[in-house]
Amino acid sequence: MLKTQEITLSSFKELDPNLVKEAAKRVSPYLNHTPLIESRLLNNWLGHRIIFKAECLQRTGAFKARGALNALLTLKEQGNLPHHIAAFSSGNHAQAVAWACSMLGVKSTIYLPKIVSPIKKQATISYGADVVEAQTRKEAEALTDEAAKNGAYIIPPFDHDDVILGQGTACFEALSDSANPDAVFSPCGGGGLTSGTLLASRLFSKKIDVFAVEPKNANDAAISVKTGKIFRFEDSPDTIADGARTLGVSERTFHYLKQCAGIYEIEEEEIIYWSQWISHLLKVSCETTSAMAMAASYKWLKTQTTPKTALIILSGGNIDPSIQKKIWEKNYLDKIPAFK
Amino acid sequence: MLKTQEITLSSFKELDPNLVKEAAKRVSPYLNHTPLIESRLLNNWLGHRIIFKAECLQRTGAFKARGALNALLTLKEQGNLPHHIAAFSSGNHAQAVAWACSMLGVKSTIYLPKIVSPIKKQATISYGADVVEAQTRKEAEALTDEAAKNGAYIIPPFDHDDVILGQGTACFEALSDSANPDAVFSPCGGGGLTSGTLLASRLFSKKIDVFAVEPKNANDAAISVKTGKIFRFEDSPDTIADGARTLGVSERTFHYLKQCAGIYEIEEEEIIYWSQWISHLLKVSCETTSAMAMAASYKWLKTQTTPKTALIILSGGNIDPSIQKKIWEKNYLDKIPAFK
Repeated sequence: MLKTQEITLSSFKELDPNLVKEAAKRVSPYLNHTPLIESRLLNNWLGHRIIFKAECLQRTGAFKARGALNALLTLKEQGNLPHHIAAFSSGNHAQAVAWACSMLGVKSTIYLPKIVSPIKKQATISYGADVVEAQTRKEAEALTDEAAKNGAYIIPPFDHDDVILGQGTACFEALSDSANPDAVFSPCGGGGLTSGTLLASRLFSKKIDVFAVEPKNANDAAISVKTGKIFRFEDSPDTIADGARTLGVSERTFHYLKQCAGIYEIEEEEIIYWSQWISHLLKVSCETTSAMAMAASYKWLKTQTTPKTALIILSGGNIDPSIQKKIWEKNYLDKIPAFK
Repeated sequence: MLKTQEITLSSFKELDPNLVKEAAKRVSPYLNHTPLIESRLLNNWLGHRIIFKAECLQRTGAFKARGALNALLTLKEQGNLPHHIAAFSSGNHAQAVAWACSMLGVKSTIYLPKIVSPIKKQATISYGADVVEAQTRKEAEALTDEAAKNGAYIIPPFDHDDVILGQGTACFEALSDSANPDAVFSPCGGGGLTSGTLLASRLFSKKIDVFAVEPKNANDAAISVKTGKIFRFEDSPDTIADGARTLGVSERTFHYLKQCAGIYEIEEEEIIYWSQWISHLLKVSCETTSAMAMAASYKWLKTQTTPKTALIILSGGNIDPSIQKKIWEKNYLDKIPAFK
């Protein structure tokens, strides 16, 4: 475990939702104001309204840019902008940190395991980071720890207040744009996006149910909430939703996850089904992790007796080609989603 | 061949580019003003600027909505709005006609061959059309002719002045939004989009080269321009760019194609390569036919000695799942496009 996590754990307390509003003011000049998109066809088929917050069109292709940027800008405001940032990630967080650092002219080093696809490595380099390839995931983690000991500041992917507040700005922006949903569905890996979303939802007078969504194959958060104790996988769980392969949530994010209206657990086939349909109906590239949130909203809407509006955070659009291949192996577009 | 085509052929004369501006005024209240999108990464890799007009985010998922709507609205202005529209198409034109008719409250019948995928059929029905399934493509064409004889008005997919003017509004909108390109790349099936694009480009003081782009496997327009005589395939040519499987262009569109700066012919593998990269870099679903235009602009930019700006009309985003499967069979994202 990274040193910063150990430090922040002891100083953890629940955040004031107003801090999300402040974070939004802080980060928005650097970010895309991503659109809310809808499919008339889908709404018509379901008899409900689904609004998608298209964070796949965010800088770096995912909401992660928000959290990394907010953490850095907050440090800068406090006069503590580090000279060197280090991060370990094989996913969107690496690109987010690299990009945020380039925005603020801070040197960044990203430690990647060798197995990371060339395209992810190239993107991280293009955002201006020094990329260090490690033989294994474990070695990459150790190198990051080493960098921290040598004075680099670590931005963790979710266990950090300013990261959570930054991620919350996606939902805040959607609600400020009058999405006006009855429920919000947030994909859950480490729980940063869900925690921020929960906080953001409290800034609006209407009662909004916030649901976390996990793959059934990576249901550590659901188990944790059920048992009241954080459950961690030993190894990366096997799911096509690569953004949700986290081993476990943190004490900090667990605190917010317990306050959600519920946690949905989604089957692999459902994730693939909705990956196809979102691509088809919305014409955007949507990560499998985001499709999972759509699957949950579909289940929830099915139980509603009056027309409802659901907001889905389409968390990102960086889809590995090996996952694209799996998504399109079989055709699911001949089974139209409907229950009106 | 459809009756309307025979009629219009004899009355054909070159259109005034200002009519595209009028068409834009006519159709825009009904349409999405689609965004211009860019990839900073791609621009950086190439040392040029590429602007994409995202018609994949257009109503019905393709630019075709523009032409069908303009034809109908023009008839309405002339006091000749038909009571019944018929069309034969297995692609985006079917959905465009169905949608445009529903906008104006006109009954539409779309004749589809039985082999059309359920999803395309379902979408056409959802837009409010009566869908008639024929055993074969030939039978569907015959049924459309029959409907015309019985008083239905036929909106052809490209061989119609008002359809061409409508398609031209996509480029007109992009140029009005200050795209300011040195060259525009338009996919070419029947040539409607390219013809309209050429007309639109003449409304702006800067000299803009308009290029048509075809699959090498379906290069009837290139052969026609080379030989000065319209060349028609006997059967649908075999290409992954399904929007460019047209048998041949018409006299009307041939007239404009001859005035283009050139016609690019693209290999199947290049189409797949750019389908993957556009999805990856822009996070939008882009038809193979659109990816083809990107391939051409890449070839053109390679020959330029100073930084240039290219505009690409991303014609649509309706990708058949069987084509998605072909696109993602092999990984092309490990070969980064670059020549800066």
